[in-house]
Amino acid sequence: MSEHGLLVSAPGKVILHGEHAVVHGKAALAVALGLRTFLRLRPGGGERLRIHLPGVGPPSVEQLDVLKEFAGIAADASAPDSLAVLAFLYMCLAISAKYGDVPSVDIAVWSELPTGAGLGSSAAYTVCLAAALLHACRAISCPLKDGEATARWPEEEMTLINSWAFQGERVIHGNPSGVDNAVGTWGMVPTLRILLTNTKVPRSTKVLVAGVKEKILKFPAIMNPVLDSIDAISQECQSVLEAMPTNPSPEYYPILEELFDINQHHLNVIGVGHPSLDRLCRVTASHGLHSKLTGAGGGGCGITLLPPGQCSLLTLHEAVRVQSPPLAALSCPPADSLAALAFLLADATPLAVEAAKRDLCACGFECWETDIGAPGVTLHSSSSLKAEVLHALSES
Amino acid sequence: MSEHGLLVSAPGKVILHGEHAVVHGKAALAVALGLRTFLRLRPGGGERLRIHLPGVGPPSVEQLDVLKEFAGIAADASAPDSLAVLAFLYMCLAISAKYGDVPSVDIAVWSELPTGAGLGSSAAYTVCLAAALLHACRAISCPLKDGEATARWPEEEMTLINSWAFQGERVIHGNPSGVDNAVGTWGMVPTLRILLTNTKVPRSTKVLVAGVKEKILKFPAIMNPVLDSIDAISQECQSVLEAMPTNPSPEYYPILEELFDINQHHLNVIGVGHPSLDRLCRVTASHGLHSKLTGAGGGGCGITLLPPGQCSLLTLHEAVRVQSPPLAALSCPPADSLAALAFLLADATPLAVEAAKRDLCACGFECWETDIGAPGVTLHSSSSLKAEVLHALSES
Repeated sequence: MSEHGLLVSAPGKVILHGEHAVVHGKAALAVALGLRTFLRLRPGGGERLRIHLPGVGPPSVEQLDVLKEFAGIAADASAPDSLAVLAFLYMCLAISAKYGDVPSVDIAVWSELPTGAGLGSSAAYTVCLAAALLHACRAISCPLKDGEATARWPEEEMTLINSWAFQGERVIHGNPSGVDNAVGTWGMVPTLRILLTNTKVPRSTKVLVAGVKEKILKFPAIMNPVLDSIDAISQECQSVLEAMPTNPSPEYYPILEELFDINQHHLNVIGVGHPSLDRLCRVTASHGLHSKLTGAGGGGCGITLLPPGQCSLLTLHEAVRVQSPPLAALSCPPADSLAALAFLLADATPLAVEAAKRDLCACGFECWETDIGAPGVTLHSSSSLKAEVLHALSES
Repeated sequence: MSEHGLLVSAPGKVILHGEHAVVHGKAALAVALGLRTFLRLRPGGGERLRIHLPGVGPPSVEQLDVLKEFAGIAADASAPDSLAVLAFLYMCLAISAKYGDVPSVDIAVWSELPTGAGLGSSAAYTVCLAAALLHACRAISCPLKDGEATARWPEEEMTLINSWAFQGERVIHGNPSGVDNAVGTWGMVPTLRILLTNTKVPRSTKVLVAGVKEKILKFPAIMNPVLDSIDAISQECQSVLEAMPTNPSPEYYPILEELFDINQHHLNVIGVGHPSLDRLCRVTASHGLHSKLTGAGGGGCGITLLPPGQCSLLTLHEAVRVQSPPLAALSCPPADSLAALAFLLADATPLAVEAAKRDLCACGFECWETDIGAPGVTLHSSSSLKAEVLHALSES
């Protein structure tokens, strides 16, 4: 552990296809996002948190009530801060009980991910936390060698991190699908540049999900085929992403764009569109870019594919690298073992993208230009982190 | 026959749901349009057209070649005028051969329907022609009694008109579905007010149909469910239209609107949308009105539902009337016997409609406010026709 302590990060996720359909038993495709949560763990000052829980299993209502009381969190608390503290307490205690005491630690967390935007910020947090706590009590190794910028844990240790992150997710979300923590753990090598746009239109996922269900009950013969079509889109998209690195060719990109357009229409059909999202799609379309909503819809975030430049296509063969289970399909079991996915894209059509971003901001939206297909949970040397991140972690 | 001769009219048609899907074996829903073609038949000056064709069946290539030569029409003629003359010649000869000579006649035709806009103008013409020619050679009765404004033929005579109109359609279109002439013959009692908007964007039906087929072959698992959903929309719409007159309630109208929205998205998915149609939908949506493309798409016409006013809903029970086979479903056999359809709607939300029309015209589009669900082939007294129509028929 360096003077900066243990530095861990995990990516957020974004749903490419299958939001809502997944609630009705269809496949969905979630990918790692190039926006991450960072965690720094340092030895603590000696005050130790030492509670033993007999027979640690999944968090029970009773256990959580005790922890809420201990931490001074209201029984019905739903603020991200309170839930994050609760997840930390639970994971600390449960990991201690299983692998031996977690030593007194000082933990700082900072994230590039907005909370409550459907971008897997809570999973990125619990993945970081699981990695740090398991490392602190020596349940997993420290794969970062001197002089290395970053390192990742071996397969079986990532499985352990993922399973504990999932327990943390259960504390925060009650009944999560397990996809967000899988994406945060396994990640994916860089593949596509995207624009993530927050319409800032607030919405209730619960109301939207109920609306879709109601529409399916109202028009089953019309709506069920739409869900089937969305299912096929997720599978087609996954096939295309799998095929891309082994045979990178410009023909794949328009297919991804076409699938985006089709699914956006489908999402409007099932009733989770919103005029702000229509506007987002129209603005990007006017610059030749293809968008769809991502997540719950009804406002919230949209995702825009940024096409690869000519140069990047020429250097694709050099960019191909292989990394372990990258794409998590929301269908259970989640992670379909996806072969190498590397489609490192250089900046392309920068003028169109800049113009689109300007127009989107003029609508009052907020944009991030980032990648999908980021590495999963990662151990960092302090020198490999941006000064901004280190500074933020020191402040917190 | 009055001094004005025999006056016949037949309505155009508009596709409510199922365009394109019908090419792939799905149901579609076509309804009569409140825009009509009028035909006046008067005894001729004595020059008689007398050609006997042995064994008259469907028009053969050889027969049509002879007729083309006779009328001085180029072998590959496709102009509406040439095809109309050809259909007239064929029907004249074939009906003469079957029912005895058509006497020397003078025929004038005038239409409110634009040609080549997918609104069934050719079928409205052949329906009028079939009725007039069958009447001239006494194969059908003259149901119009003195002092009556309009009259319709009895069931079995309409069947005969329809079958001859279909032969005329074959001359004009080669391989028509038979829906247009069925709608033109049977029609439907007034049911819904609509706005028909021509984007004036030219398109090739052939290219659009081929594009849909290509897309289905490219993404069968994604596209076939969309066709299934469109099929279910046609059926659901038909059920709603059937249910409306027996139990008229404001709850039906939003369903029709919802089905329009869903199908418009589906038509975009199968690739027959167009920015001009998106604009049409957006403009009408801004006035609370729901639209979809109708026909081939890729430009062409859009149809907008105009909602019933409060008053019309209160007087619905008085407006209910029953008429024979009204809705023609494109599924073969075409005309699903549809029960009473009468939902006479008074002018509603006139301000919103006027504002929408103004905005659509500002886009360079052309609008007609009309009804769907018009009476089928009808015999008129001269006093029941608008002066404009009589004048047009005298001019021609």
